[in-house]
Amino acid sequence: MKIELLCTGDEILSGKTVNTNYSYLARKLQDHGFNATWGTTVGDDREDLLDAFQRAGSRADAVIVNGGLGPTVDDLSQEVAAQAAGVELELHRGWYGRIEAWYQSRGRKMPENNTKQAMLPQGAEFIDNPIGTACGFAMDIGGARFFFTPGVPRELFRMMEEQLIPRLQEIRGTDQVTLVKRFHTFGIGESRADRMLDGVEDIDVGRPVKLGFQSHFPQLETKLTVHGRSGDDLAGIIAPVEQEVRKRLGNFILSEDDESLEDVVISSLVDNHLTLVVGEMHTSGAISARLSGSQGYQGAFVKSVVAPSVAGLSSLGPDVEFSEESALGVAQNLCDEHGANTALVVLSALQDRTDETEPYADLVIAVQSPARSEVRVSRLPGSENWTRSGAAELGLDCLRRLLTGLPVAEKIDFEQH
Amino acid sequence: MKIELLCTGDEILSGKTVNTNYSYLARKLQDHGFNATWGTTVGDDREDLLDAFQRAGSRADAVIVNGGLGPTVDDLSQEVAAQAAGVELELHRGWYGRIEAWYQSRGRKMPENNTKQAMLPQGAEFIDNPIGTACGFAMDIGGARFFFTPGVPRELFRMMEEQLIPRLQEIRGTDQVTLVKRFHTFGIGESRADRMLDGVEDIDVGRPVKLGFQSHFPQLETKLTVHGRSGDDLAGIIAPVEQEVRKRLGNFILSEDDESLEDVVISSLVDNHLTLVVGEMHTSGAISARLSGSQGYQGAFVKSVVAPSVAGLSSLGPDVEFSEESALGVAQNLCDEHGANTALVVLSALQDRTDETEPYADLVIAVQSPARSEVRVSRLPGSENWTRSGAAELGLDCLRRLLTGLPVAEKIDFEQH
Repeated sequence: MKIELLCTGDEILSGKTVNTNYSYLARKLQDHGFNATWGTTVGDDREDLLDAFQRAGSRADAVIVNGGLGPTVDDLSQEVAAQAAGVELELHRGWYGRIEAWYQSRGRKMPENNTKQAMLPQGAEFIDNPIGTACGFAMDIGGARFFFTPGVPRELFRMMEEQLIPRLQEIRGTDQVTLVKRFHTFGIGESRADRMLDGVEDIDVGRPVKLGFQSHFPQLETKLTVHGRSGDDLAGIIAPVEQEVRKRLGNFILSEDDESLEDVVISSLVDNHLTLVVGEMHTSGAISARLSGSQGYQGAFVKSVVAPSVAGLSSLGPDVEFSEESALGVAQNLCDEHGANTALVVLSALQDRTDETEPYADLVIAVQSPARSEVRVSRLPGSENWTRSGAAELGLDCLRRLLTGLPVAEKIDFEQH
Repeated sequence: MKIELLCTGDEILSGKTVNTNYSYLARKLQDHGFNATWGTTVGDDREDLLDAFQRAGSRADAVIVNGGLGPTVDDLSQEVAAQAAGVELELHRGWYGRIEAWYQSRGRKMPENNTKQAMLPQGAEFIDNPIGTACGFAMDIGGARFFFTPGVPRELFRMMEEQLIPRLQEIRGTDQVTLVKRFHTFGIGESRADRMLDGVEDIDVGRPVKLGFQSHFPQLETKLTVHGRSGDDLAGIIAPVEQEVRKRLGNFILSEDDESLEDVVISSLVDNHLTLVVGEMHTSGAISARLSGSQGYQGAFVKSVVAPSVAGLSSLGPDVEFSEESALGVAQNLCDEHGANTALVVLSALQDRTDETEPYADLVIAVQSPARSEVRVSRLPGSENWTRSGAAELGLDCLRRLLTGLPVAEKIDFEQH
């Protein structure tokens, strides 16, 4: 099944807005066993839109058009769609009433030009948008079914998930459903993960399970995708493969599905009645900022101290050096001073920038809980910004490993050995 | 002049990689007075690539193709380009030697499949890539001049800037040059900035000056673009317009061109021999993390304390409340305790999430230097993540205003009044 994505609007064409709607749509298609086969970007230009609609209509089975449904004169999707199909526009009374009511409920009068958003090509199938004033619609142009969607990301996401995916599945002709199981790891690159999971796709569970990767530095996401018919117990079917992936990626798995590394750290603290203090050098506050988004942060997080020198992190005096002993000393000192029982300390020594060689950051990370304390030494190659995110990730991962009883000093792919 | 952008590769087509190369290319074109008129994305598929090359060749004057120049079998750009133009591939000995030398200098043998990267369509114009193994090239297909570029962003950026822009200018037939002057502001939305700068484009400097905006929440970028011929004193020509923009946007201007807000803050501290301590609640380390990238940070930044409660920020005891007096008290206490003479303190009270109303964050920000101290009270509407970046920006802006002698408590568009 050939599915094209057609993104419209001067903001996208001119590069003013990065086209994240495109990558969302393409990935979401893939999660449901579809593939985007062609992508087109055109501006708010009548002639180009018509040309793009006709070309896509001649090539594809389905086309998702994004944008151009707004109330202003440069929003042309309905008008050009009608022209391409050789029909007129007509008022969709139901949607008109909904927009009017939406304004009334906010004590405002509906502006005249919003009427435009309720004008749909004759015969078009209405597609609801429960959270905006631009409804979607579907119609045939050439040999393809066209789906028109709003440019506002949260409106698009909801319409895609709730309305377009089921319609595309209907065109495909089966009641196919899809399960995507996700694992988040840190420390292994895509090619190594691929080798570690060699043969996992061949485990016989009676149907194909697809393995895929997506890297979001410094993390890697590993996905298992399985398709079935509604009513199938896909979670049960995929379980043996899931267990094998869990076994092979082992300690490198930070979290699964929607959970984040920060969530795991904070909930481990909360579950064990621990309170955390953090000392950050090179990461400069990035670790603390990441933790603050997780449920339970307020109770588990006592304090973070950020300073550009080892001595600045604690009250141990000016002679503290960059060493494993110092890191442990700073951890203990921060616990004592701020009344916490768990600590994460990241010390760093940046390589001299004037040097000709490739830049890197040397790190000494100490993690301490009432049960145990550990030190992790690492050299991360890369620019200052790059090693800063790497150091934040490594620090949080050391803490996760300490709290969940795993070895803290396990080598990772991204450090110099 | 019609310029199309043609992005290739399964990673881009499938949405696995967000297509930031597209937006870079389109924006860079605009900075030099060109416009992207059509965008196409296709995968690593021979038939689709050929189709896309032919269509673009029939529509455009120039086409920039991105990606597909790598050493592996799925990199097809040279091969399909040759097919589209009806010529053969031939070895570019100069580039072959360069790749070989590149490997030798790293003590490695050049892998056999890198030879592919030196195979160019007959008659193609070689385009240098001083920082990678994929050279660019240019050739005619249909009625358009095609430019083939590598997918690695830093290689693309350099090739675009140094090699493609001059060639496109040559096609345009004049030695046109462009100057883009940029202002970064915080506190005014795009529509208000547009009103504040009403008529600025009409100031007569003997040639058109184009005004444009790009918003990167929470900042807004205002651009002035002027074109001329090489040798023109564009900086001198645009100066009266530039001064008018500076006058009208006034205190809201954080920085200009490549300078950042953080750079301005750190260099003000350094110039005035000041040392900074920061106390962060809601921003949770984000302010400290931002400052750490600026030149002079190591000397000017003493310490940051991050805590989820007002009491946790200082040694003032457990009874410190969320108030203007407390913020000033914490600022003074942090200075005394950590031996700094300048302080930025951001206190926050988040609205109860269980409430039905729209979420917001209440902020009290104190800034203090040896010369003066000020308090800024604000309510920022929005989600927790949204108000976190807003609060970090507002905090840094208050400090900038204090250090540069501007009023600290100037209302901004993004707060509730």
